[in-house]
Amino acid sequence: MTQEPGPFDFQLLATAPSGARAGVLRTPHGDVPTPIFMPVGTRASVKALAVSDLVAADARIILGNSYHLFLRPGAEVIGQAGGLAAFNGWNRPTLTDSGGFQVVSLAKLRRIEDEGVTFRSHLDGTQHQFTPESVVRLNRNLAPDIVMPLDVPPMPGSSPADIQRANRLTVEWARRAQAEFVRTEGTQVTGKPQALFGIAQGGLEEAARRESAAALVDLDLPGYAAGGLSFGEDKDLTREMLQVTLDALPKDRPRYLMGMGIPEDLIDGVRRGVDMFDCVLPTRNARNGQALTSRGPVNLRLERWARDFGPLDPDCGCETCTGYTRAYLRHLEKTGEMLGARLVSLHNVHFYLDLVRRMRGAILDGTFEDFRANALALLAEGS
Amino acid sequence: MTQEPGPFDFQLLATAPSGARAGVLRTPHGDVPTPIFMPVGTRASVKALAVSDLVAADARIILGNSYHLFLRPGAEVIGQAGGLAAFNGWNRPTLTDSGGFQVVSLAKLRRIEDEGVTFRSHLDGTQHQFTPESVVRLNRNLAPDIVMPLDVPPMPGSSPADIQRANRLTVEWARRAQAEFVRTEGTQVTGKPQALFGIAQGGLEEAARRESAAALVDLDLPGYAAGGLSFGEDKDLTREMLQVTLDALPKDRPRYLMGMGIPEDLIDGVRRGVDMFDCVLPTRNARNGQALTSRGPVNLRLERWARDFGPLDPDCGCETCTGYTRAYLRHLEKTGEMLGARLVSLHNVHFYLDLVRRMRGAILDGTFEDFRANALALLAEGS
Repeated sequence: MTQEPGPFDFQLLATAPSGARAGVLRTPHGDVPTPIFMPVGTRASVKALAVSDLVAADARIILGNSYHLFLRPGAEVIGQAGGLAAFNGWNRPTLTDSGGFQVVSLAKLRRIEDEGVTFRSHLDGTQHQFTPESVVRLNRNLAPDIVMPLDVPPMPGSSPADIQRANRLTVEWARRAQAEFVRTEGTQVTGKPQALFGIAQGGLEEAARRESAAALVDLDLPGYAAGGLSFGEDKDLTREMLQVTLDALPKDRPRYLMGMGIPEDLIDGVRRGVDMFDCVLPTRNARNGQALTSRGPVNLRLERWARDFGPLDPDCGCETCTGYTRAYLRHLEKTGEMLGARLVSLHNVHFYLDLVRRMRGAILDGTFEDFRANALALLAEGS
Repeated sequence: MTQEPGPFDFQLLATAPSGARAGVLRTPHGDVPTPIFMPVGTRASVKALAVSDLVAADARIILGNSYHLFLRPGAEVIGQAGGLAAFNGWNRPTLTDSGGFQVVSLAKLRRIEDEGVTFRSHLDGTQHQFTPESVVRLNRNLAPDIVMPLDVPPMPGSSPADIQRANRLTVEWARRAQAEFVRTEGTQVTGKPQALFGIAQGGLEEAARRESAAALVDLDLPGYAAGGLSFGEDKDLTREMLQVTLDALPKDRPRYLMGMGIPEDLIDGVRRGVDMFDCVLPTRNARNGQALTSRGPVNLRLERWARDFGPLDPDCGCETCTGYTRAYLRHLEKTGEMLGARLVSLHNVHFYLDLVRRMRGAILDGTFEDFRANALALLAEGS
């Protein structure tokens, strides 16, 4: 007798020898094939892109940010709209980042105490407190499918004592978030089930990372993230720490690498068994005129492309690559036309989604290592 | 025996008692139903909109600007691409504005002599000369369907002597442009026929407007524009001057009112027999958070819309009005998300195109006056 699948059932379809996995994560707003890249819609908008663009790129899940949405427009406004999906028109799954990272990196005069974090808004200086409980409650209004709990990512250069304290709070807060999550079950504005994931921290210390992951695994959460690995520190060490975290996580739950990275990072992460990624890079770099392509990055502001009437990425089927030339995209960049940021964002997100789709296909076909070698060689080739 | 239609054949299908006309203008890149609104793509991009948006709004012809495109990316780049349609991916008709207005309003240290106009680029201060001939030649590279000749629009407050001089130069330059146009026939990069229109000026003086139009009509051009009427001067006087120009133009040629205006101006212009309009207003106002709707303008930055989960314009079927709410559009405006300018531009352009489409339908149905009264009442109603 097979068990009835739960609302966040995660099914693994294939695992490569390296640990690379292909699966499907069920959610109330639709199935998410994994590995997946999640475009970042911090303030309920994936910058420069409409819902129609995301659907055309076959995005399956996007991010929102609890901290930013708490400040503007406020969780009650989104709750009144009927949750994020009703508010921004994106009817596929959404995951909200807790805001732990934003409180650390953006907010002013923050004070991290056992109870929670007190901070001043980076927008108007007003004082607020986030607790593990309040972040869960505000997400009953935002109503994403997946909620990330409030955590404490230790900043680069933290002392072992700081890392220990961050670990302790991250785990305690996860436990409190879980209790509040159980207590408030059913109060979400959509009435649809939500899942609370855990975030494993631990800085760049092997023992601390292992401990953080192990303590979270004890909570038996439906999914786990590796946090604190996107501060841009040494790549080899970062990847080693990722591996330590992954090794400590159960194989039957989705694993999410937060805030990472360049295409090579996605390929490395998938190889190690990461199932979910998010990163602002495809949209942020687009706004600076940088396209990410199968042949590596392309700086569209260069004179070099002024008379290049070929497509941005010859391997891409997106609206930008099939409808416009490098010369035109360069012209848009040089003249500051808003359409430039839009068309390059569209391509970059399409390219990232295509990359994870292709990796997934290769895992299912048993050809992941070949795919990886070819993709890395092409990325290194340059345009 | 019917005559073979020429490449810019203009067919009138119906004329209302007021003079309002419905027709079709043939061009090498496709038929243009009239009356028509032409979205402005100054630098080969209708700001914030992709070709796919313009096609979805069923735009039939867009503008480019000779002055701006001469400066960036340069006419030779566009010529090498194969003309504007190949350069920006818009495969429907294009009309290029001469740049006469931009030289007057933007360029520095301009000197208008009989030969042409010498000016410094508003971008980098480099000195250039435009002559009627050079503007025609550069348009053989830009290769729009319709070319507007270099003209001299008298600025508001010009003396009668200044207006006389501007009239004299505008007509002489139109004649020289026509001669160069004949001489260079066949050198356009697309090989497709182009049409040179005339621009009637005359400031706000009845006799001067009549003279300017009459002198241009002697050149037997395939279409005529009323220029110099979008400086924002007294509306009644401006409309009276428009009427003087229209009365002096042949009924069998398309008539283009340059740079105008709010929806009420389009309704008034169509009623008087204008066939073509262009204006930056739908896209420029969108970038300032102002939507133009069937119920008048909507300032999306107002607190008033924070919890308004209805569509921007209940009478509109565009992607913005069917996919997003006022509350969400306000959120995008308040947070400075680029998607806001895009979605509002898309709606505004859609609304303008819908307005001319509906007017055309009403003229063909013999119900234009009813349509006009209803549309004006609705516009005055407010949201």
